[in-house]
Amino acid sequence: MIYFRSDYSQGAHPKVMEALVNTNMEHTDGYGMDDHCARAADMIRDLIGDRTCAVHMMVGGTPCNSTVIAAALRPYESVVAVRTGHIYFHESGAIEATGHRVLTVEGIDGKLTPDLIDRALEEYEDEHTPLPRMVYLSQPTEIGTIYSRAEMAAISEKCRERELLLYVDGARLGAALTCGENDLSIRELAGLCDAFYIGGTKNGALFGEALVIRNRQINDHFRWMMKRQGGMLAKGRLIGVQFEALLEGGEGSVYYQMAAHANRMAEKLRTGLKEQQVSFYSDSPTNQIFPVFPKDVVRELEKEFFFYAWAPERDGMVPVRLVTAWGTAEADVDAFLDRVRALYANRK
Amino acid sequence: MIYFRSDYSQGAHPKVMEALVNTNMEHTDGYGMDDHCARAADMIRDLIGDRTCAVHMMVGGTPCNSTVIAAALRPYESVVAVRTGHIYFHESGAIEATGHRVLTVEGIDGKLTPDLIDRALEEYEDEHTPLPRMVYLSQPTEIGTIYSRAEMAAISEKCRERELLLYVDGARLGAALTCGENDLSIRELAGLCDAFYIGGTKNGALFGEALVIRNRQINDHFRWMMKRQGGMLAKGRLIGVQFEALLEGGEGSVYYQMAAHANRMAEKLRTGLKEQQVSFYSDSPTNQIFPVFPKDVVRELEKEFFFYAWAPERDGMVPVRLVTAWGTAEADVDAFLDRVRALYANRK
Amino acid sequence: MIYFRSDYSQGAHPKVMEALVNTNMEHTDGYGMDDHCARAADMIRDLIGDRTCAVHMMVGGTPCNSTVIAAALRPYESVVAVRTGHIYFHESGAIEATGHRVLTVEGIDGKLTPDLIDRALEEYEDEHTPLPRMVYLSQPTEIGTIYSRAEMAAISEKCRERELLLYVDGARLGAALTCGENDLSIRELAGLCDAFYIGGTKNGALFGEALVIRNRQINDHFRWMMKRQGGMLAKGRLIGVQFEALLEGGEGSVYYQMAAHANRMAEKLRTGLKEQQVSFYSDSPTNQIFPVFPKDVVRELEKEFFFYAWAPERDGMVPVRLVTAWGTAEADVDAFLDRVRALYANRK
Amino acid sequence: MIYFRSDYSQGAHPKVMEALVNTNMEHTDGYGMDDHCARAADMIRDLIGDRTCAVHMMVGGTPCNSTVIAAALRPYESVVAVRTGHIYFHESGAIEATGHRVLTVEGIDGKLTPDLIDRALEEYEDEHTPLPRMVYLSQPTEIGTIYSRAEMAAISEKCRERELLLYVDGARLGAALTCGENDLSIRELAGLCDAFYIGGTKNGALFGEALVIRNRQINDHFRWMMKRQGGMLAKGRLIGVQFEALLEGGEGSVYYQMAAHANRMAEKLRTGLKEQQVSFYSDSPTNQIFPVFPKDVVRELEKEFFFYAWAPERDGMVPVRLVTAWGTAEADVDAFLDRVRALYANRK
Repeated sequence: MIYFRSDYSQGAHPKVMEALVNTNMEHTDGYGMDDHCARAADMIRDLIGDRTCAVHMMVGGTPCNSTVIAAALRPYESVVAVRTGHIYFHESGAIEATGHRVLTVEGIDGKLTPDLIDRALEEYEDEHTPLPRMVYLSQPTEIGTIYSRAEMAAISEKCRERELLLYVDGARLGAALTCGENDLSIRELAGLCDAFYIGGTKNGALFGEALVIRNRQINDHFRWMMKRQGGMLAKGRLIGVQFEALLEGGEGSVYYQMAAHANRMAEKLRTGLKEQQVSFYSDSPTNQIFPVFPKDVVRELEKEFFFYAWAPERDGMVPVRLVTAWGTAEADVDAFLDRVRALYANRK
Repeated sequence: MIYFRSDYSQGAHPKVMEALVNTNMEHTDGYGMDDHCARAADMIRDLIGDRTCAVHMMVGGTPCNSTVIAAALRPYESVVAVRTGHIYFHESGAIEATGHRVLTVEGIDGKLTPDLIDRALEEYEDEHTPLPRMVYLSQPTEIGTIYSRAEMAAISEKCRERELLLYVDGARLGAALTCGENDLSIRELAGLCDAFYIGGTKNGALFGEALVIRNRQINDHFRWMMKRQGGMLAKGRLIGVQFEALLEGGEGSVYYQMAAHANRMAEKLRTGLKEQQVSFYSDSPTNQIFPVFPKDVVRELEKEFFFYAWAPERDGMVPVRLVTAWGTAEADVDAFLDRVRALYANRK
Repeated sequence: MIYFRSDYSQGAHPKVMEALVNTNMEHTDGYGMDDHCARAADMIRDLIGDRTCAVHMMVGGTPCNSTVIAAALRPYESVVAVRTGHIYFHESGAIEATGHRVLTVEGIDGKLTPDLIDRALEEYEDEHTPLPRMVYLSQPTEIGTIYSRAEMAAISEKCRERELLLYVDGARLGAALTCGENDLSIRELAGLCDAFYIGGTKNGALFGEALVIRNRQINDHFRWMMKRQGGMLAKGRLIGVQFEALLEGGEGSVYYQMAAHANRMAEKLRTGLKEQQVSFYSDSPTNQIFPVFPKDVVRELEKEFFFYAWAPERDGMVPVRLVTAWGTAEADVDAFLDRVRALYANRK
Repeated sequence: MIYFRSDYSQGAHPKVMEALVNTNMEHTDGYGMDDHCARAADMIRDLIGDRTCAVHMMVGGTPCNSTVIAAALRPYESVVAVRTGHIYFHESGAIEATGHRVLTVEGIDGKLTPDLIDRALEEYEDEHTPLPRMVYLSQPTEIGTIYSRAEMAAISEKCRERELLLYVDGARLGAALTCGENDLSIRELAGLCDAFYIGGTKNGALFGEALVIRNRQINDHFRWMMKRQGGMLAKGRLIGVQFEALLEGGEGSVYYQMAAHANRMAEKLRTGLKEQQVSFYSDSPTNQIFPVFPKDVVRELEKEFFFYAWAPERDGMVPVRLVTAWGTAEADVDAFLDRVRALYANRK
């Protein structure tokens, strides 16, 4: 079986594994208070051009999101997100578990806009309604689209105007940064938000996300919040070691290279499918694509390839999600395209 | 100033006050473990024809809702409601404070339908999404509409099919029960749901709601939940005494009489406004009506009458909410209609 | 049966009921945004000599405590209390329900001391332990003892030194203020703490506690917290009306008179029992006393009087709690003492 | 510097790293739904002789504890633990964050006893107090002591009698199982409790704990709880792969070997220090020892060795904690003992 199901189906990039093996017998302090975490944090500070931000090494995306949100909000405050946002759609209520509402709006191409933020805030009245205090968005979004520099700047501006914090989920940030359409550098992104994270799990780490907090208020006693939310790893250095390996070389690092490869593989799939007149559920330029196939084609493809149906069948057609990753072999992409071509040829 | 702002702007019906005064010097046990609460509970059991249900005297609607929901759901479970539902719209996140998501759908005339429930459940996938486990609705709804017997039965049926608990917020239950359009008796309502409450605050009590729990699992250790959620009154008997006074005589009780009066006053307002060709935001047959006035008319009316604008102005028109109550004087209704007539006459 | 079980077994002082009846038909805004609440708040500001503090009318002690604590603490912070403290001992985990630990120490005569606070703080280490941030105590304590002016000042000083907020639960504050041993005025008390409440429920109100917040940070968006915690009453004015009636006349008010009466009744009981050589579990000068009786005496007394056993039997002796209140009749006190005398006479 | 500070200062046992490297390029499903996790679970079922228990691969001890406790308890229920218990002492309120109280008692040698459990339960009264529903203990305890088979059986029996669940934190379970004093096999332990975990982090894994749930009710929708609490790893197989490597060979596995080594190194330290007449704060037979040194000796030792002071200085003496691990070199132990001998020689 060939996997297009996720970008976390394999272990880590060999360079990451090598770093883990090489440092394995070192003794260090626990809980992220070690030199590897410190060095990785410094590399990130260099990358984004901010020497004063806080960087925390988090185990995964969900504890990262819930800890930031719980740290940033007072109990009666809520966070605005699109209905497809990860914190609403795929975290089993981890945000609500900390007592906060996710105030959802229907996104446009999976994205928030300043207007949508205004509309979300219309729900707010007074002490009888939760007070919206943060905007959560993902770059790229859950359906693979990306915010342009202008779009992100407009949202950031709107957040300032409406006194909202801006937090960016970068689970697949590499895919956005290395995408042809992208015009928003990590440095610019950092400058536009209060906090964001650089995702490791979905781009070649065993696990781990590097959380960058620029707003000091969110960072107040953040380590207490990490521990309380269960998101502090005893051998915290493991995340530091991995990010050292991932980010060495900055924009030329293996982190950028892997994401670029994943995007290229997705591009090849996209182009190949378009040649077969396949339509798409979302116009994504990154490593997740959402072709729509006839139901019987899906059934045939599932015999050889692992992927998810993304939305319910409608009129015999099923949108599916194909995800490429740093480890996706070009031969597997070719195999998929060949199979689709053959299936479509049969249908005519 | 004349109040059409809420049905809780006055104290209690004189009969209720009298009962409180008459029982004032009695000594009883606290926390609702007294004979008045027991008798009121029995009166309610008679009224709904269920001798085995649990009845709890709750201080107010919000603690009632949050306690029932927190008692009924496991941590990862969510409750389905329309976006205008009180638990979503006017309780400042009291449900999320207990760790649960309110899964919202856009209602139709403020109401849920079996189809809308199915659509809400489409959001559910697996362990990565909160598990919808309860349906919350209000009878009447926040915009004054009511569920017919057939509609409520269909929802109850859908809940059983989808393994959802059904909880009915009866903050204004009296208004539904005594409304001309209504064909759903309290006995039938009780039989269709797992829990509901008979609202006192908005129908002539000083405060207090009588919560009826028919599903034993929700009732397990419910008093522990009440105490923990801060919803247990030391002098709990006060609620029992009030419900004894309110419900004495069953369908001929002051509870029914007051609600019927409020409905009549609303009906008079509605009819009078329709004569002026005023349009309505919602087609409500109960004690809340939602006329849409030109902005300048609203501004004039606000000089003499207290009421809320219900939704933002659109094209110079503003939907407002007028609420009548057990204590609304017919003269006040006449005064309002006279003023509207005069203002409309001037506009021509 | 004669009640010595609690100070909330009757309704309200007749003057309070009268005020409720007299204002019953007024129309006011809801949720405590009315003139009665405003006036009661001003009366309290005068009483404590602080024109700038915030005053909130709360439904009961438990929602008051949990709302203040949840509003004051960040998620990882804890509150220090004696093990017999109400928030630990009798609120079913309402504080933990808001995510906060109650860090307990064994009190001395039911009281905290600066040393005990220091000792409690020894538990704190770093980000792996909750951060103690508030001290909670009751005046009088759960076992009826009171803090002297010097003791309260020393605790206040210690709190400032250790950066702890000080919150005083005044459920029975009247009993402390009017007790012969007391040398701490309400004005001094207010000056020594960040927040405290003046209990109504246990001193002649139907229900309601007047919460005074002097620390602005705790008061930030406090009404949002009240609503979210379920502690905001729709007809909020009811609490304002009651406190107007209770506090009119300041130190000569019915509030002070009632508490003084309860203390006198307790004093009479105490003196009468001491004449019988009855020993006491706690040396309380207020309206709760804790005589220790032989088991068979307790059994006999229970036939005519309602009271609670306070601690498990030891060597045949049972500590019980007798509570007097504003409505305790002197004849009932005499009846109790007569019965004890008779029982003790028989035993010889 | 030589580390005796913790048993998580190094990476993983080479055999574990090898397994991670060897399986690195495999594609598998995420979130623990892979063959490695399934095989590791089966190995554990064999080890404990229970084919029907549930096994979940957890990221770390704190999320494991908080998820089990939140899954097992209803909102108003509490968990009993000794005051030094990890859930009380070193998890920053992670349990309270889920709304539950940790009801603490002072342990004896760091341990609970049936009597202490009874005493803890004396705090419980009725709906005004949280309901104790679970006993939490660690094997070995936080101060390195262990429960004998008889002691654990007595606690298990007491739990059954008082309707309490029994949950055992096995963060250092290997140290208990391979300790000379131990007479409680893992199979017996499993049979006596409702849930326990086999700690990986503190015995040679990079991270990960294998949670065994024997009580079906605790396991109901447990994966929803894991996700919601942030404790579900995307590349969940990493934990499965590690436990396969750790447990291969059962009682002869590298897991048992590593723990035995750590115990031997601790034993050598203990014996060596006793020869110098050093006294101990706790009589621990496992891999944590607690010698008490003069303050100046501690200061000297800290120049070459990393370890923690365990309790405040008293009369010039400081209890410290020395922890040995699978990777502790015998030469480091010798160096420590030599240094102590030299310092003690100088003092005479």
